[in-house]
Amino acid sequence: MSSFWSKNPQMQAKIKDICDLIEKRVVIRNPEIETAIVELSVSGGKYLRPAFFYLFAGFGDSKKAETTDLTKIASSLEILHMATLMHDDIIDDSPLRRGQATVQSKFGKDVAVYTGDLLFTVFFELILETMVDTPYLAINAKAMKKILMGELNQMHLQFNQVQSVRDYLHSVSGKTAELFRLAAKEGAYFGGATSDIVRLAGRIGHNIGMAFQILDDILDYTADPKTFNKPVLEDLPNGVYSLPLLFALEQKPEAFKELLDKKEKISLEDRKSVAKLVKEIGGVEASRQLARRFTQKAILDIQQLPEAKAKNDLLKLTNHLLKRQI
Amino acid sequence: MSSFWSKNPQMQAKIKDICDLIEKRVVIRNPEIETAIVELSVSGGKYLRPAFFYLFAGFGDSKKAETTDLTKIASSLEILHMATLMHDDIIDDSPLRRGQATVQSKFGKDVAVYTGDLLFTVFFELILETMVDTPYLAINAKAMKKILMGELNQMHLQFNQVQSVRDYLHSVSGKTAELFRLAAKEGAYFGGATSDIVRLAGRIGHNIGMAFQILDDILDYTADPKTFNKPVLEDLPNGVYSLPLLFALEQKPEAFKELLDKKEKISLEDRKSVAKLVKEIGGVEASRQLARRFTQKAILDIQQLPEAKAKNDLLKLTNHLLKRQI
Repeated sequence: MSSFWSKNPQMQAKIKDICDLIEKRVVIRNPEIETAIVELSVSGGKYLRPAFFYLFAGFGDSKKAETTDLTKIASSLEILHMATLMHDDIIDDSPLRRGQATVQSKFGKDVAVYTGDLLFTVFFELILETMVDTPYLAINAKAMKKILMGELNQMHLQFNQVQSVRDYLHSVSGKTAELFRLAAKEGAYFGGATSDIVRLAGRIGHNIGMAFQILDDILDYTADPKTFNKPVLEDLPNGVYSLPLLFALEQKPEAFKELLDKKEKISLEDRKSVAKLVKEIGGVEASRQLARRFTQKAILDIQQLPEAKAKNDLLKLTNHLLKRQI
Repeated sequence: MSSFWSKNPQMQAKIKDICDLIEKRVVIRNPEIETAIVELSVSGGKYLRPAFFYLFAGFGDSKKAETTDLTKIASSLEILHMATLMHDDIIDDSPLRRGQATVQSKFGKDVAVYTGDLLFTVFFELILETMVDTPYLAINAKAMKKILMGELNQMHLQFNQVQSVRDYLHSVSGKTAELFRLAAKEGAYFGGATSDIVRLAGRIGHNIGMAFQILDDILDYTADPKTFNKPVLEDLPNGVYSLPLLFALEQKPEAFKELLDKKEKISLEDRKSVAKLVKEIGGVEASRQLARRFTQKAILDIQQLPEAKAKNDLLKLTNHLLKRQI
């Protein structure tokens, strides 16, 4: 488990329960895969989606909430996230995830495919065990489809130099924001909150997710690879053009044509040139502004929530998360 | 659609409904993937799992059965099958499936990963729409996990020259037989049959699935690549050792050591030598006998079913399927 939650022992205990549950659910006859899953689960993820889930559960009626089930639901969110990470890493050919070798680089794409599939089935099991009498089975199916559609949409736009900021926002709204939205909504709902709070939670989750992804994409253009746990600008040879570049492309498409036309063959030097241009043309600044807008929306909505200990924690986490290194 | 059902217009009409439903459910913004799925769906599959489903539905009370839902459930079986095919082809690096280029060879592994995932979500949607008030949601989750465990088990045994026939049967019981078992049970259950018939159906499905996979694996050792729609003996360089080889290995492990030690580098010539040895040592004959035992068990059980038009059709399909080219 990462040290991210070291100052919040209550949350740390809950995350420990999730890790234990994941470890129990992936006991299989293939020790390679079992190890791969457990490693990913304990290798320093921040468990943000379960954390938001628990924070939103704090706005409900604690008498209505049942602890065991909350652990299962929180785990289902992390497991769905892990399944998509596993398959994303195949697509991106990523050597690193959370600073460690990815399953696909360590065990090969084959193991990564089935490991992701196994995680999908465990996700499926968990929600069946907890949500049969609620509308959330159908909501989960829809969310899972939306997440995947976001990924597919992004893949469809690979190497496309005329895609718009709108296309990017559409993909992100699926591939990242949808799971934050689900986590927040489920937290409120299964924590026993009113339907107004559930609705508000969903909107807050969405806006946090949007800001989170934009900030993550900005880091690609600003971070020092030595302190940042993933390879910098690896999106470019994969043909994934994120917000800072898209803003800059809208301003000066001709400045990038020659560099981007190299597609997967774009060198590290060329990538650095792209990053420099993006900054000069203002792509990073425009992205920061947009991230700020999503963050502000989220914070305004959080302030609408009823007074509760969770409210302060939620504000703190949101502020911390959405202010990192920008 | 393949010509397999051309003499059974009723079944053909049902399969047409399934194709239409699949086409409707995969409307997405990524035309590559949409085409890939529709191509796989119409490219000559025999729709065996939906067919068994419908035949077993014939032993129920037709007043209890609801047509639209049956189409959705039958489709869920084919879609789950397609999802696993899509991901299997990645693992096997297969160039062909049903005589056509596989999604992964045509569009790349990336598209194949997400296309499989998308099919899993559509499967999930369909069973949620049809089974919420039944024990079959949980049964489906368990079946999906068992299928995947079969695949993982097989992968774990890759290139293992001391695996046993028992290991093989364990993998096949998951990766192939489980879906036939599910199809048969669901047919009986949702067709409105008694619980005794549902149980019998499950056993018949399992035994048909076992025989089916063994016969498929025998074909690898006996078929002429010109008339058989997939590359012959491609399992060997993938390290997948099927029943005929395992029987022969049990008899004379030393005969194969040098050839199999070449692992993925085994040449076409070497593969032919393996096949020749397997036949000489009696691996093909022993596999045929075992397939016959599973077939006989299935047929004896089918004879226990109550009289119905479906009974004759079921016997005909089973006989046809399990006698092909052996």
